[in-house]
Amino acid sequence: MSDYLSIKEQDKQYVLHSWAKQGSFNPKVIAKAEGVCFWDDAGNRYFDMSSQLVYVNVGHQHPKVLKAFQEIGTYPLAGPSFATKPKSDLSQRIIELAPSNMAKVFYTSGGAEANDHAVKIARMVSGRYKIFSRYRSYHGATFGAGNLTGESRRFAAEPGLPGFVKFEVPYLYREVIDFDSEEAATAYYLGKLRNQILYEGSDTIAAIFIEPIPGSNGVLIPPKGYLEGVRALCDEFGILMICDEVMTGFGRTGKGFAVDHYDFKPDIMTFAKGVTSGYAPLGGVIISEDISRFFDENVLMTGLTYSGHTMCTQIGVANLEVYEEENIFENAEKMGILLKQRLEKLLTFPSIGEIRSIGLFAGVELVKDKATKEPIIQYGLDYGKDPVGLMNKFISMLSANGFYTYSHESTVIIAPPLIITEEQINEAMDIFESTLKQFEKEGLFPEETLSV
Amino acid sequence: MSDYLSIKEQDKQYVLHSWAKQGSFNPKVIAKAEGVCFWDDAGNRYFDMSSQLVYVNVGHQHPKVLKAFQEIGTYPLAGPSFATKPKSDLSQRIIELAPSNMAKVFYTSGGAEANDHAVKIARMVSGRYKIFSRYRSYHGATFGAGNLTGESRRFAAEPGLPGFVKFEVPYLYREVIDFDSEEAATAYYLGKLRNQILYEGSDTIAAIFIEPIPGSNGVLIPPKGYLEGVRALCDEFGILMICDEVMTGFGRTGKGFAVDHYDFKPDIMTFAKGVTSGYAPLGGVIISEDISRFFDENVLMTGLTYSGHTMCTQIGVANLEVYEEENIFENAEKMGILLKQRLEKLLTFPSIGEIRSIGLFAGVELVKDKATKEPIIQYGLDYGKDPVGLMNKFISMLSANGFYTYSHESTVIIAPPLIITEEQINEAMDIFESTLKQFEKEGLFPEETLSV
Ligand SMILES: Cc1ncc(COP(=O)(O)O)c(C=O)c1O
Ligand SMILES: Cc1ncc(COP(=O)(O)O)c(C=O)c1O
Repeated sequence: MSDYLSIKEQDKQYVLHSWAKQGSFNPKVIAKAEGVCFWDDAGNRYFDMSSQLVYVNVGHQHPKVLKAFQEIGTYPLAGPSFATKPKSDLSQRIIELAPSNMAKVFYTSGGAEANDHAVKIARMVSGRYKIFSRYRSYHGATFGAGNLTGESRRFAAEPGLPGFVKFEVPYLYREVIDFDSEEAATAYYLGKLRNQILYEGSDTIAAIFIEPIPGSNGVLIPPKGYLEGVRALCDEFGILMICDEVMTGFGRTGKGFAVDHYDFKPDIMTFAKGVTSGYAPLGGVIISEDISRFFDENVLMTGLTYSGHTMCTQIGVANLEVYEEENIFENAEKMGILLKQRLEKLLTFPSIGEIRSIGLFAGVELVKDKATKEPIIQYGLDYGKDPVGLMNKFISMLSANGFYTYSHESTVIIAPPLIITEEQINEAMDIFESTLKQFEKEGLFPEETLSV
Repeated sequence: MSDYLSIKEQDKQYVLHSWAKQGSFNPKVIAKAEGVCFWDDAGNRYFDMSSQLVYVNVGHQHPKVLKAFQEIGTYPLAGPSFATKPKSDLSQRIIELAPSNMAKVFYTSGGAEANDHAVKIARMVSGRYKIFSRYRSYHGATFGAGNLTGESRRFAAEPGLPGFVKFEVPYLYREVIDFDSEEAATAYYLGKLRNQILYEGSDTIAAIFIEPIPGSNGVLIPPKGYLEGVRALCDEFGILMICDEVMTGFGRTGKGFAVDHYDFKPDIMTFAKGVTSGYAPLGGVIISEDISRFFDENVLMTGLTYSGHTMCTQIGVANLEVYEEENIFENAEKMGILLKQRLEKLLTFPSIGEIRSIGLFAGVELVKDKATKEPIIQYGLDYGKDPVGLMNKFISMLSANGFYTYSHESTVIIAPPLIITEEQINEAMDIFESTLKQFEKEGLFPEETLSV
């Protein structure tokens, strides 16, 4: 125990934590973990309902992935210019899993890096420089990814890159217009996007960059036909379509990639997280056959020291084998249906505005008032700027009750490891429900508590 | 053997390699490695005289680092907001190794990422946006690092970020002016830099970003007093001084960091490569006590999924223990003296223009003509643009003879693992010398061959 205390003291003295004010930051120590749970140093158990940052897809301490670490050293470390068995094997597996037009993989160590390199690749191939991406998106924190990002975390990457243009994401629950149907919404957003492409100069635009289902920003599932429509606009104007599958890739939505739910193929995809379940830092860019041919004749003017890192690709292979051997994506699909049923029951709570889910990827959006949809936290007040702090309070209460996750604006993310069972979903969601009751009473509607 | 063939075929079919034209790219397969050597699939041995990309500091297949992989799983995977024993331990070790004003570590997975985050940190702390960096520098390939970079690899990251300003690096061998002394050169460069600071608006400048000893661009050792003078300019104008120690850090120059050779302290340092000897992807930003206090009260508005990755920091700790237990930095210093002696002997060759070295970090600059200093390859023709290809030819000849490394412009990089012995240096340098003779005869001065 004193050991753990000193870990925390060391941490507070020497470590800078992401997206936080360090002085008041009080890190938890994970003492033990297994499957869908972890335990802190006081012995409290938590359901890891965000899979850390939506990456521990095969669960904590998976025996086969841990065993793969025992075998590190079988293949010597090799720089990016060498061929290695793990890099070759993983690449073939990824291409076989990806849409049928995909041909080659460029590796990075994480998601933001993947997006930076994807932007560079799109510019090289197209000879154009403008890059479209969406509001309410998160693509990472390097300067390329930070400028792609459409929410408040991008401001720290500004003044930004020239030619990065933002357009609106379909977020029907908070749209100013009331649409009669999903189709009407799709027609509206595509029409607006088409205009903006023309206004910006269609032949200056290298790529349209999207999370097929924006994750960090609240699991915003697109209306019917929207993604296919973006693809059609890309085809019309010779623009590359890039899908950021960093969070959605590798089974999160119940299929290999989120795009597999729809009827289109991107030109470029980026990935990270689920490719290794986070056991080793790895990400990358998948490019189509067409783009691959371009780089047969042209230099790929980008690179990094750890592109295709031997150890990380070796862990990636083990992790992809687990997906296959244990039918993990199928489990995600099945358990996703159960999770959705549990989530739909939440709609009877006065504070639940909307639930959105696909596979084991869900957002639960809270409101102060169902009729007005008044959010719990105003736009842009995440990351220590909210004077009321009600969302933080709810997340802390969930955690105190053994349900670990995070929120963005008024939406709580629910994205457990893909190996979760029915029993575990029910146990975790029971905690969620009782905590929500408690939160409504103590946090959200305290005057009603007072009047009792 | 057929196994290796198929690795190569798979690679050519599925993998995109950094900084290369893919169609004509023919990757080698590393079949075995140990210490300072590796072997290809045909059984040929190579001295790894660039430590892959200047990172395998403890040598290939180091038993203690490999053993650390056996212990992965001892600490569960934890996202950036948690405290973990490996992250706490590594951070304390890094701060103890760093200059005495340094206080905290922010982790990334590589060098470019570290530089992107350092730029963001400098902008947050200073409230200013301009960033100075130097020509003939390499800082990585994400958009921040790519725009910091001062050589041709940066063009693929353009159009670039506003406020990134370049200044000249002291490169006395190719300077237009002939200086009487190092001191005169220093006075010249600092005077020019001071003017440029004023011209750009001193109070718009957040940071001056430098590799203390530019590595990729040819191991350009600064003239006496130069770095201290840059520090003084930073102090005069309230500008942060950031040192990129990605390549030079962790013993490469015979000391912990390159800055330890000089009499100044930076405000921020970035690192990667040597922190793990490349066994796991890890990098980071070290900040001073002053900057650390700023983030006690202000949100650090940046982050990444794998910041402080449990497994990577665990490998980092093992690697830093090896440095200590085996007195690796001391060996680098001692062997560096021997290497310098061997390099100085090269100056009798007609094609050797200059040698530059510090510790086990050396550049050997070739010329077509000693008197005119005509380079082997014109500026900007690296990466597949050189129609003559003489430098590529020399690097290929070295490799065919068992001396593996790479070049930039007309400079060959020599940076072996820090565990190299006197015998190995001599054996490798014998290969270098005989290959150089062969290259002069067959490649560089062929008419003289013909006239024999
Ligand atoms: C969709 C998406 N893209 C990119 C990133 C950035 O990835 P990383 O944090 O590995 O840089 C994230 C991280 O959450 C993400 O969700
Ligand atoms: C000085 C310096 N900075 C940054 C980088 C980029 O590091 P990475 O390739 O890990 O992104 C390098 C790589 O060689 C480097 O030498």
